[in-house]
Amino acid sequence: MEKVNLKRKFESFDETWVPKIVGELNGQFVKLVKFEGDYVWHQHETEDELFLVLKGEVTIHLRDSTVELGEGEFLIVPRGIEHKPVAPRLAHVLLFEPASTRNTGNVDHRYTIDPDHLQRI
Amino acid sequence: MEKVNLKRKFESFDETWVPKIVGELNGQFVKLVKFEGDYVWHQHETEDELFLVLKGEVTIHLRDSTVELGEGEFLIVPRGIEHKPVAPRLAHVLLFEPASTRNTGNVDHRYTIDPDHLQRI
Repeated sequence: MEKVNLKRKFESFDETWVPKIVGELNGQFVKLVKFEGDYVWHQHETEDELFLVLKGEVTIHLRDSTVELGEGEFLIVPRGIEHKPVAPRLAHVLLFEPASTRNTGNVDHRYTIDPDHLQRI
Repeated sequence: MEKVNLKRKFESFDETWVPKIVGELNGQFVKLVKFEGDYVWHQHETEDELFLVLKGEVTIHLRDSTVELGEGEFLIVPRGIEHKPVAPRLAHVLLFEPASTRNTGNVDHRYTIDPDHLQRI
């Protein structure tokens, strides 16, 4: 049982759009991701997903609206809702979602990573 | 689907040790709590619990050790592990835990609140 310092964890990697697992509880993962640029439109059939912005700004595009998230703001995207995260500049984001969640949901993309292959840091 | 601004949510209440629900996903709640002083020793039989400190400092006492959490640090306390949070001064804390989680776990205490009676803010 060790504490996690979010800032230090973010300093430990550079890749963007590659979630890193930093905690696991009740079948859910806490993941850290660096966002920069445009992600891919996708949805998760059976998982709700929480995006908490810790640094920078992120826009979550939805099919009928957009949500702007600044530092200290979060959005829960319910299962089945198409979304596309965009960050004009580097942003640090914490995700909270079921361990089964595939990063690009229903879409196959060069960003796709099998949940079993996610790195724990 | 509305975003949540953590700072503004914390400004909206004063009570200490009374979790407020600010998000729900996958059967889990995101809760905000103001800590000040000593809480009660307790454990949760079937729920792991995440404490993320957003402001101030919190010590999580465990039976055989203590963990000091500063801003931007979290600890996951696994189910069945007795713990006692302490905050020397007012601290703001985010909890991730199953919706079923009772705030004082296995202990009946004046702080106890039935999970069904938690306020959503």
